[in-house]
Amino acid sequence: MSDMLALTMGDPAGIGPEITVGAWRALQHGGPSFVVIGDPGILTRAGGTVRVIGDVAAARGVFADAIPVLSQALAAPVTPGHPDSANAGAITASIARAVRLAQADEVAGIVTNPISKVVLRRAGFPHPGHTEYLGELCDMPGREVMMLACPHLRVVPVTVHVALRRALDELDAAAIIRATRTTHAALRQDFGLVVPRIAVAGLNPHAGEGGTMGTEERDIIIPAMEVLRAEGMDITGPWPPDTMFTPAARARYDVAMCMYHDQGLIPLKTLDMAQGVNVTLGLPIIRTSPDHGTAFDIAGHGTADPSSLVAALRMAAEMAVHRNRS
Amino acid sequence: MSDMLALTMGDPAGIGPEITVGAWRALQHGGPSFVVIGDPGILTRAGGTVRVIGDVAAARGVFADAIPVLSQALAAPVTPGHPDSANAGAITASIARAVRLAQADEVAGIVTNPISKVVLRRAGFPHPGHTEYLGELCDMPGREVMMLACPHLRVVPVTVHVALRRALDELDAAAIIRATRTTHAALRQDFGLVVPRIAVAGLNPHAGEGGTMGTEERDIIIPAMEVLRAEGMDITGPWPPDTMFTPAARARYDVAMCMYHDQGLIPLKTLDMAQGVNVTLGLPIIRTSPDHGTAFDIAGHGTADPSSLVAALRMAAEMAVHRNRS
Repeated sequence: MSDMLALTMGDPAGIGPEITVGAWRALQHGGPSFVVIGDPGILTRAGGTVRVIGDVAAARGVFADAIPVLSQALAAPVTPGHPDSANAGAITASIARAVRLAQADEVAGIVTNPISKVVLRRAGFPHPGHTEYLGELCDMPGREVMMLACPHLRVVPVTVHVALRRALDELDAAAIIRATRTTHAALRQDFGLVVPRIAVAGLNPHAGEGGTMGTEERDIIIPAMEVLRAEGMDITGPWPPDTMFTPAARARYDVAMCMYHDQGLIPLKTLDMAQGVNVTLGLPIIRTSPDHGTAFDIAGHGTADPSSLVAALRMAAEMAVHRNRS
Repeated sequence: MSDMLALTMGDPAGIGPEITVGAWRALQHGGPSFVVIGDPGILTRAGGTVRVIGDVAAARGVFADAIPVLSQALAAPVTPGHPDSANAGAITASIARAVRLAQADEVAGIVTNPISKVVLRRAGFPHPGHTEYLGELCDMPGREVMMLACPHLRVVPVTVHVALRRALDELDAAAIIRATRTTHAALRQDFGLVVPRIAVAGLNPHAGEGGTMGTEERDIIIPAMEVLRAEGMDITGPWPPDTMFTPAARARYDVAMCMYHDQGLIPLKTLDMAQGVNVTLGLPIIRTSPDHGTAFDIAGHGTADPSSLVAALRMAAEMAVHRNRS
């Protein structure tokens, strides 16, 4: 099995090219190694030393000296900070090609540079985002679960990119059970946690305070937890959301199951903006990405921080090691 | 004007007595000075050196050597960790007496030890909590606004102790305008900020992302902000909730106006559980409290951390200095 990772190009007008070069500089001697699927000229312009290769096998001898690139031609020239929907086809082709390489075991996993939903949607891209597109490419639409991880915390929002009001409408025991089962299996398989300790957040202030501030804990969350506990999971909660992310509380669990997007992402980004990693669980392939966007406003300035991409590459490599052992 | 503070007893079966003693030890030589309205025997049992005084004026000469106490008799004996609703009358009387002292300018402000809503409600206490009771005692029910502050962050939730679904129903432009006006005036009067920089959170993930993930930003939050900006406030937003509490983002504002309880309290408690202070804005008197509860589970063990109460006493004293100057 390969230990090489595939890194997609992301939106070439965003900070993807410069953080790719930054990540390669950070990792060229210690690894993990990766091959970029993208436009070699863009990486050269971002200051990288680049070598175009014909297949993944050729990347190994290259990585210490240059960024190995499987070339993916662009349809339009790139101006940093000015995305062009004409390049949407190349952006999505890079993702699809990375997935195929992972499915064929030519790479150990894929790491994706940021894309812009707005830019892709203008070109007819029908998926709400990266994660959903990957579910589709893996023939498992709807199975994907988003986990955000930093050195201090892992969170899984049960509902994701929907309005808060709709998140309340969509939240049910089945959604909690599905997301938690996927998370539990992934923490065992890809993170080496034999008995993952799962903390479940309440939905309401003070987790509803005995039903006086909301009933979803009683009617939805606790019944879901009972099903999961009966399956043998180490699961606690529902915890008051505001006190479950203190250092003492975090020491007691491996992952926090959160009921809506910001309940999980506020503490994660408050604790660690620079090293957060987005991990897609529930797919047959390993996939991580930095937890920031294209940052068109600073693209091309050379100031973008590659830390999150470096952390994403390292996490994908570690997940692959665990998966091979398990 | 007095610079003495009044500290209420809180629930005597909680950690109030031991953190009161701890706070006095931390402050007895440097101040700020305070007088406790409570049962002297409970404080003695918690390890304090206590002196019962007849009026606030007598406290000044006492504080360096003993905790000055205005005695408030209890109706039932106290076992730490086992609250008794028979003492509800004494608990609320302590609060009412502190408020009267502040209204008469005998003290510069009041600091309240934690109470248990459940214990008080069992005895017929009709108020949702401390803050609302204070609004009532000051003849300004509904004017009170809760701010949580720690050295890194100040947050004001526009909706507070209600189920999340009800918070969405209650959120309107009038509520945002009212809470922000009160906050703006208090930051000027009591915190010495001439032009407070106010950041307003969005409600939805990514602040609605242009209406694709919720419309409250467009229909409620932005119209409210326009009204407030027209009044001359330095106000920005609506910000994506998950990225507005990073260090770089926090450096750009003095207070975050949050749309629901956990949106503000998650980042505050994640950043700083030990030194958080709860401040009631919009009342004629100064009032702060620690941002934790009675902690019946550890009461009497001598392990409770008085840091938040110390921070609350210091903040009340600083607010009084600013208010006297303004």
